[in-house]
Amino acid sequence: MPSPPPDWVKALKPAGPQGSELLAQERAQSNVNVEKLSEYLHTKAALERQDKLVALLQPEKVFDKSQNHSLGRVERLQRSLAKAKRLQQIAEQQKWNMEELHTANELIGEPTPYGLHASMFLVTLREQGTPEQHKLFLERAQKYQIIGCYAQTELGHGSNVRGLETTATWNSDDKTFTINSPTLTASKWWIGSLGRTANHAVVMAQLFIDGKSFGPHPFVVQVRDLETHQPLENVYVGDIGPKFGYNTMDNGFLLFNKVKIPHVNMLARFSRIDKDTNKYLRPALPTLVYGTLTWVRSNIVLQAGGVLARGVTIATRYAAVRRQFQDRDAEPHAGENQVLNYKMVQVRLLPLLASMYALHFTGRGMMALYEQNQSRMKAASSPGQDSRGAGPEELRAGADLLADLHATSCGLKALASTTAGEGLEVCRRACGGHGYSSYSGIGPYYSDYLPTLTWEGDNYMLTQQVARYLLKSARAVLSGKSADNDTSRILRNYLNRRDKGASFDVLEEDADIVAAFAWRTAHLTFEALKHRDAEKRSWNSLLVDFWRLSTAHSQYLVVKNFYEAVSSPQLASALDQETKSLMHSLFRLYALHTLEREAAEFFSSGAVTVRQITLTRTTAVMKLLDEIRPHAVRLVDAWAIPDWQLDSSLGRSDGQVYEDLFRRASQENPVNDLVFDPYPWNKALLKNEPAKSKL
Amino acid sequence: MPSPPPDWVKALKPAGPQGSELLAQERAQSNVNVEKLSEYLHTKAALERQDKLVALLQPEKVFDKSQNHSLGRVERLQRSLAKAKRLQQIAEQQKWNMEELHTANELIGEPTPYGLHASMFLVTLREQGTPEQHKLFLERAQKYQIIGCYAQTELGHGSNVRGLETTATWNSDDKTFTINSPTLTASKWWIGSLGRTANHAVVMAQLFIDGKSFGPHPFVVQVRDLETHQPLENVYVGDIGPKFGYNTMDNGFLLFNKVKIPHVNMLARFSRIDKDTNKYLRPALPTLVYGTLTWVRSNIVLQAGGVLARGVTIATRYAAVRRQFQDRDAEPHAGENQVLNYKMVQVRLLPLLASMYALHFTGRGMMALYEQNQSRMKAASSPGQDSRGAGPEELRAGADLLADLHATSCGLKALASTTAGEGLEVCRRACGGHGYSSYSGIGPYYSDYLPTLTWEGDNYMLTQQVARYLLKSARAVLSGKSADNDTSRILRNYLNRRDKGASFDVLEEDADIVAAFAWRTAHLTFEALKHRDAEKRSWNSLLVDFWRLSTAHSQYLVVKNFYEAVSSPQLASALDQETKSLMHSLFRLYALHTLEREAAEFFSSGAVTVRQITLTRTTAVMKLLDEIRPHAVRLVDAWAIPDWQLDSSLGRSDGQVYEDLFRRASQENPVNDLVFDPYPWNKALLKNEPAKSKL
Repeated sequence: MPSPPPDWVKALKPAGPQGSELLAQERAQSNVNVEKLSEYLHTKAALERQDKLVALLQPEKVFDKSQNHSLGRVERLQRSLAKAKRLQQIAEQQKWNMEELHTANELIGEPTPYGLHASMFLVTLREQGTPEQHKLFLERAQKYQIIGCYAQTELGHGSNVRGLETTATWNSDDKTFTINSPTLTASKWWIGSLGRTANHAVVMAQLFIDGKSFGPHPFVVQVRDLETHQPLENVYVGDIGPKFGYNTMDNGFLLFNKVKIPHVNMLARFSRIDKDTNKYLRPALPTLVYGTLTWVRSNIVLQAGGVLARGVTIATRYAAVRRQFQDRDAEPHAGENQVLNYKMVQVRLLPLLASMYALHFTGRGMMALYEQNQSRMKAASSPGQDSRGAGPEELRAGADLLADLHATSCGLKALASTTAGEGLEVCRRACGGHGYSSYSGIGPYYSDYLPTLTWEGDNYMLTQQVARYLLKSARAVLSGKSADNDTSRILRNYLNRRDKGASFDVLEEDADIVAAFAWRTAHLTFEALKHRDAEKRSWNSLLVDFWRLSTAHSQYLVVKNFYEAVSSPQLASALDQETKSLMHSLFRLYALHTLEREAAEFFSSGAVTVRQITLTRTTAVMKLLDEIRPHAVRLVDAWAIPDWQLDSSLGRSDGQVYEDLFRRASQENPVNDLVFDPYPWNKALLKNEPAKSKL
Repeated sequence: MPSPPPDWVKALKPAGPQGSELLAQERAQSNVNVEKLSEYLHTKAALERQDKLVALLQPEKVFDKSQNHSLGRVERLQRSLAKAKRLQQIAEQQKWNMEELHTANELIGEPTPYGLHASMFLVTLREQGTPEQHKLFLERAQKYQIIGCYAQTELGHGSNVRGLETTATWNSDDKTFTINSPTLTASKWWIGSLGRTANHAVVMAQLFIDGKSFGPHPFVVQVRDLETHQPLENVYVGDIGPKFGYNTMDNGFLLFNKVKIPHVNMLARFSRIDKDTNKYLRPALPTLVYGTLTWVRSNIVLQAGGVLARGVTIATRYAAVRRQFQDRDAEPHAGENQVLNYKMVQVRLLPLLASMYALHFTGRGMMALYEQNQSRMKAASSPGQDSRGAGPEELRAGADLLADLHATSCGLKALASTTAGEGLEVCRRACGGHGYSSYSGIGPYYSDYLPTLTWEGDNYMLTQQVARYLLKSARAVLSGKSADNDTSRILRNYLNRRDKGASFDVLEEDADIVAAFAWRTAHLTFEALKHRDAEKRSWNSLLVDFWRLSTAHSQYLVVKNFYEAVSSPQLASALDQETKSLMHSLFRLYALHTLEREAAEFFSSGAVTVRQITLTRTTAVMKLLDEIRPHAVRLVDAWAIPDWQLDSSLGRSDGQVYEDLFRRASQENPVNDLVFDPYPWNKALLKNEPAKSKL
């Protein structure tokens, strides 16, 4: 590293007022009780866990973050594996639960090569394995005696699981399967933890018995030697190369040349082959799998709030510290204005601040609904139930609700991850030039987050599932056979009132805002239904309409969940009156800003008038920005993201932005060890020239 | 690098149909004459130059791109300097002109540490230096005997040049300047080529004479020794660290501790200090500087088309090769559908295809206008003119036009670079999972391009200049003193017709589309004027309106320029009838897709009816997508971007997408040289366990 700066440099301070003073001023002008709000958002236990883990992990050299953005991929990957190992060691020593391990990984701040082992490999073995398979694979995997991954995606197939090309052929003679990659595009691809780390994989392959295909099934396949870590024979495996982000993960490829595995390696909880009869036995309980995906997607919604919060925390604090230009209408000798005072900055950042709260409460609402329903169904299907009683009915209602939850979780996953991903980039740009520095902490985090928009269902693909569900629900409502859930309710409401028309007072009544979003969704649903069922238009020609419909529906769900959260007795009892009213303002800002951006749909569905939209834009949103502005810093403080996790010069909670940028550039930047010969030609050529232009 | 794959892997091919077959099919279904269209877009000379340079540069090992995305910053920077040096050597040997050097740099595909020397340093010396200063600095800089940069931005000040803190104090006693950094935020920051490479800088500093400030002026300051390349005394200089992109450039910081430089080092073409009287002599010809910025911004508009073309070329070709799912309405045994056939993909890619043509023609139009005006002004102000004749009038008309060009170039720079930057990310996501791989060629290029949205005027800041100009023009129109330019014309037209209302037939008449865009701009201008002048609203409260206004105006300009280009006799004579009509379809797609996205403004300004907007979305745009779809591959082929420049597995002109992804991952990926010990605990612990789960 470079030598420390000379004394005359060390003596320099940023021009005043100092960042620390500006943030202190921000915090002084708001009464938001940051601690109470934090606890309400995250629980006291979670905050304490976070503090404890920061104190434990930050001092360890192995977790140092200072070189993350300068190193090449080889070294980053090696260091990341070292971090993962050390975390696992501590986890065992300290007997961490899942939440502690999860929080520790979040604090480390990068995906590690153990990532897919610790998540998808263990989950799949647990959920899809039999007790025998648990003993054989899961127990050893939990002890990190085997390291695994989940190998589904192929070079030629991502979204379309049915199109997978890898085959698993049942050999009835020796009771084994042959795993094979018939083409180059059959190569497994993008498989996290596989590139260099895993020695086992759960491989999704097309099951063939007697030449007949039974669709994709999961198989446990060993791919590397447990001692030498070299690939096994007839296995070709490696890392797929550098990526836009996620470079601390060894996403891998995997080809098989007719590799045999025993019968027990097909994960057999839901479907299996009877060894004696060579018959395929049908899958059981498919709704449970359905349920897992719903849980995963709801979790993405909840996390999206936290992801966005990182960007908004950084950009908001920096916009309070950064001053640029005078206000044009200000006194001639006024100082430069905090960037956060400019309406053009507020209109970019504060709706995102509202969005992070909106997504958080929506994710929470989804999770609660999911868990309620799961326990209801579990109770209903448990043997203790009266067999002639409420059991089956409850089960059916539960299945209806699960179908609704599944569809809504698809749409919300798409909306939430797009909002968070694109929002991070808005935050980065709102930081001006310094947003481009890796020390801003936004760029690298954004790059690592982006795959979320594609995985667990591509955000565009998912919208078709939402549309399909809404069309189905609309048909059921029209035929009088609708289910008892919220989606059916808003469709029925619309039909009942369509002739009278809507007259929602979105500028004055919060409940009317929710109703206007519901109205627009219902309107677009019946429009789409007309195109598909009456006009018989092709599915393909309607994809854009479906995408708009899904977005509209998901925005309605966020608005509804946010409204319910800010109106809830829990929130009322946890927060003081002022903070509570601020939460209402955030709700209104999220909803009205969205309404204004989607004005054309709200207008053409008749949910609101053009006059209302104009007033929303020019008056209501502007007023909300004024209302929220003084509390912006405290509202991001309440998210309680530790400085170590933010890893951002711009977003430091102490406001020492410029000191930190300068310290990192001059003291942590290996480029400054280089001495260049800057000339394209040999220096000797210079000898004929005057040596210097100095005094 | 890893050993080659085993024979059984080498024998594998992608599942058919092959990418090469699919692209051949695409090219067979369109009659677009790619060669003619290429020549019309780029000129034959430019295409030949490009071919010649690819053949020359690609074989040289120093220009190898295969490790760009795997290396750390230190090594990338070193290699990039080597590339820059080698280019400069060839340039001198082969006596390249500016265009050849520029094209070569584009082909190399990364910013190099010579970047700011070769552009801003030389340009500033040339344009702002006196003949004496040319001899002293420019001549040596041109021979690379001194290497320089342009040091304006500071740690605490980017956009606001007047707020710069670095000072240059005139010492009347010894006729020198003292350059000083009074604070930490005065540190120069983001200065390209300064971090490790430059030994000179043009430093923008606040000039003080006798305690009085004269604003920022340019000074040539040596910062490193010409022999040892070590920083000079009282200069603290270094690299600012890793960035979201642009990591092959050594953006630097720079602090001065009262460094003295001679009188001759203040660039004195436009303003200077008289050595004898110690008086400041006023700047001359400020419009010329004004003109340079206009040229730079117009050039960004032109380039934006090419930037977007790279993303669109990659995404379009890959969408033709990639197949995923069956069409839902297709026969049960139809094969998987090319992704490019899905409307949800078309609606993302084809409007961007139209945009790249739109920006290209707009940039060209701007450049032509600028050059016309420059030569007119030069002629008018030349001594040969009749002094009582058209000269002064011509000059005033020229200045009016230049003011118009300046404002329009600000707005267009913002719109064009935002469209290109955000468009690249749309292209990347349209490639699905593989878009995230660095081998897609989009991500790294996007990261390098993003600063364009911030530099040469932050895209949000710039919109204020456009609004200011439009308000001024509107006031002039109202007082009957409007200038003779297009902006005044559309404002006058709107006023004349406002009472009658508009009735533009945007669905049938191309000229009416242009008129509708003009109408919306004029409407928003007079709305903003009312808020500011009649309602006396604060400037800050109108920033969002100004941004919308500037965007509207710039979209009008693109639509107008594109329309003029596709209707021009030059295009008609260069292209066959079918391609010409396709250019009209691209114009309509760009315009109508924009109209639909901005529907609320078009509707509320009364430019179109809600019915027209609905038809635009559901019918007109869909029909245009169908029309353009079969020609998409040829339309990107015509952009003639060499494969070596694209550096993309997905965008290869031969369609060998999967072979190339696999080759790079397995053969060019240094990560595959690593062998991990994957266990968190010492391997010895395993000895008690069964060694393998193999057969």
